[in-house]
Amino acid sequence: MDSIETQIDRFFNPKSVAIIGASRRPGRIGHIIIEQMVAAKFPGRIYLINPEAAKKGHHILGIKTYGSLKDCGGPVELAIIVIPAKYVPLAMKECVEKKVPNVIIVSGGFRESGPDGVKLENEVLELANQGNIRILGPNCLGTFSPSTHIDTLFLPASTTPRPDIGRISFLSQSGSVGGSVMSFAYNEKIGFSKFVSFGNAIDVDEGDLIDYLEDDEDTQVTGLYLESINRGRKFIEICKRASKIKPFIVIKAGRSEAGTRAVSSHTGSLAGTDRIYDAAFEAAGIIRVKTIGEFFDVARALANQPPAKGKRIGVITSGGGFGVMTLDALADYNLEAPELSKDLQKRLHTKLPNFYSVRNPVDLTGSATAEQFAFSMNTLLDSDEIDGIIVIPLFMTPLLDAEQVSQAIVEASEQRKKPVVVVSVPSTKEIRERMFKLRLAGVPSYHLPMRGARGMAALVEYGEILQRPTE
Amino acid sequence: MDSIETQIDRFFNPKSVAIIGASRRPGRIGHIIIEQMVAAKFPGRIYLINPEAAKKGHHILGIKTYGSLKDCGGPVELAIIVIPAKYVPLAMKECVEKKVPNVIIVSGGFRESGPDGVKLENEVLELANQGNIRILGPNCLGTFSPSTHIDTLFLPASTTPRPDIGRISFLSQSGSVGGSVMSFAYNEKIGFSKFVSFGNAIDVDEGDLIDYLEDDEDTQVTGLYLESINRGRKFIEICKRASKIKPFIVIKAGRSEAGTRAVSSHTGSLAGTDRIYDAAFEAAGIIRVKTIGEFFDVARALANQPPAKGKRIGVITSGGGFGVMTLDALADYNLEAPELSKDLQKRLHTKLPNFYSVRNPVDLTGSATAEQFAFSMNTLLDSDEIDGIIVIPLFMTPLLDAEQVSQAIVEASEQRKKPVVVVSVPSTKEIRERMFKLRLAGVPSYHLPMRGARGMAALVEYGEILQRPTE
Repeated sequence: MDSIETQIDRFFNPKSVAIIGASRRPGRIGHIIIEQMVAAKFPGRIYLINPEAAKKGHHILGIKTYGSLKDCGGPVELAIIVIPAKYVPLAMKECVEKKVPNVIIVSGGFRESGPDGVKLENEVLELANQGNIRILGPNCLGTFSPSTHIDTLFLPASTTPRPDIGRISFLSQSGSVGGSVMSFAYNEKIGFSKFVSFGNAIDVDEGDLIDYLEDDEDTQVTGLYLESINRGRKFIEICKRASKIKPFIVIKAGRSEAGTRAVSSHTGSLAGTDRIYDAAFEAAGIIRVKTIGEFFDVARALANQPPAKGKRIGVITSGGGFGVMTLDALADYNLEAPELSKDLQKRLHTKLPNFYSVRNPVDLTGSATAEQFAFSMNTLLDSDEIDGIIVIPLFMTPLLDAEQVSQAIVEASEQRKKPVVVVSVPSTKEIRERMFKLRLAGVPSYHLPMRGARGMAALVEYGEILQRPTE
Repeated sequence: MDSIETQIDRFFNPKSVAIIGASRRPGRIGHIIIEQMVAAKFPGRIYLINPEAAKKGHHILGIKTYGSLKDCGGPVELAIIVIPAKYVPLAMKECVEKKVPNVIIVSGGFRESGPDGVKLENEVLELANQGNIRILGPNCLGTFSPSTHIDTLFLPASTTPRPDIGRISFLSQSGSVGGSVMSFAYNEKIGFSKFVSFGNAIDVDEGDLIDYLEDDEDTQVTGLYLESINRGRKFIEICKRASKIKPFIVIKAGRSEAGTRAVSSHTGSLAGTDRIYDAAFEAAGIIRVKTIGEFFDVARALANQPPAKGKRIGVITSGGGFGVMTLDALADYNLEAPELSKDLQKRLHTKLPNFYSVRNPVDLTGSATAEQFAFSMNTLLDSDEIDGIIVIPLFMTPLLDAEQVSQAIVEASEQRKKPVVVVSVPSTKEIRERMFKLRLAGVPSYHLPMRGARGMAALVEYGEILQRPTE
């Protein structure tokens, strides 16, 4: 039998797929998936299963239709099922006969819709066991992976644009949240490695996927959106190991009592008390965030900067008020912004005017120059009083050479001694583009002090996770 | 003597201004201010004071220069001083002689730069008292008011774009933070009434300005960025009264110990313990926020929606995961999302399919229609179980008629029975524009559940402030 890695890998990289429930009608789920697979430039064979269309010899988007799986000439590595729930067991039987190793069940109408749905799920699972089939879903979107050209998501790219190739992966229990995460990434120009919407997870679950991503060279950081965890012990054990290899970030919804009630209405699963989850994530070495925005703040930092070896943060700014707000934000995340030693202050003042306050924040004022930014960054990066720096150049200041400052920041970041994070105000299109450019050069740049502090806090937390003794 | 209202009003609406320190050189502060006054279409007379330029008969941007204030033919209602600190007392003497009633001292180099600066400030203040002059500053940007065509800010609009006319005013102790707030507003298409950067506030302070804005018909909501408050009792007394008329929102930086240290480096003033400020804001009926982003989330809600009469919030969504995250976010802000009564659920099910869960959130699922959104909103707005609603239409859902849903939301909001707030995912340009359109129609729309919940929490908090007994 194939290794579990090989099994899971086929969800992202199958040699051939069959879409059971392919539809001729634009707008239908069974049609959108074909469009998306074509748009993704899927390199393998696509078989479309639709008995009526096949009878009439129809093609859909130029692709031949078949009456059933057994009519397909070659082997099928991945079947995508999009027919009504009650017919899914029948389709599964065909998969068993055809020896299809992997199935994504997109269809809803299972556990989440009541006792009959639970029965259906059990039936499906039994068939899967008979045929050694790995299942993703049901009630899910499936997988998207731009590097391997697969996209089984029935959300049209015209309204849910897909991100480019990148180093962040995301696993989502909810399809709508997952889709939003992807369009958010697209709009923020954040690249994706692998996306999975796993829905009810009757077979392959978040634990299996984390296990797989731990060894995936294309994935640097992984996010999860969860409303419940069914196999808690397995999840924690896998995460404990995986989180030593690369960071995992979780949005666990249903944190509140009311939210827990909403989860049980939404997915039919029990959300459990939040404190138990908090303890589990802590034990598992998983970084927890509350919102999608916070996830990206954290993911961008972890995907690009080295973890911090401590929590003493230096702040360099050309706007005093922003220095103050950043120190407040650091305190909100339990980070320290220690007053610099007299020695270090003296060293800074060798090249900075005496009227600059350099206690931390190092306030370069409205008179800041690019050289002063470079000098201050290097001085703090070389000192043993500071574990990471937040740089706040107000690019809109007329006298500041924004291009030179950006270069100095990229150079400071490339030393990779300590994490470097940027906060600035995106007041114009040019400045927004400058900040995007910094991101592309590996420097996470944020629009608000609070968000930059969140990114830095994640680098500190992951540094702590790495320093924990392995059991 | 003029009333204090008339005195302060002249900072926004002078009949004539003199710029003392007008410069011929582009990029200089004394030049940018002329550019901005011209760009603002200031309707009154502008006198430029620059002895050297006057000697040579120079004009700047087509405006005549004068050797001194006394050479100006007509009266000067507002002088804007942008010369080095040490010459400011001299300029003030000329203002006294010329009987200029209002002065903005843009120049820095006073209290914030040490004991000599304090002495200079006292000298200036004494002269102001002699001439009954009201001073804004020093160490400030002055005022911007698009409706009265004044803009004394030396931040070029090319890098700090100005917002349009609107109903939000903002008072800032810090110039760089104030400028950022304005460009943020511009980018988010949020209109402004009046903006004031008051710097060291040796005369007119935040209390006076709040007093003025309380009666300003163009201002619906006011924000403040403060690092310290010098006259605390006066501030609280004014706010207590003013906050019953319209909402005031404060960002008080220097919340943390480290932030407090940074404040004293930045402005030379003592920030005090944060708990004292918290209690003062509470007593004053002021809504406190932590970040600029949070300020706008709150301001947009308060500027457009009626305050809530209680904290029971109903959530209507077409994406189950978003319902869960919204309920969590409401709990984070101590709001309630009560389970709807059996009666109300039954009423909802008269027009909604039975498989929709309507316990709260009302989950219209991916099958949601515009009619179902309209019906659910109206049912909750008419019920006495709910004090406000958050509507979450996922506009990217292919089957949903986004235009019809938007119309239904605007109609629900226009009833003004209870506050209505929208959360959606801005996945495409079209959806972002749709959300902007909702904002223009008076419906605050947010990109994340947490931010929508913050807006609603402010409406609840302001409702509580209004219900407090007047002393």
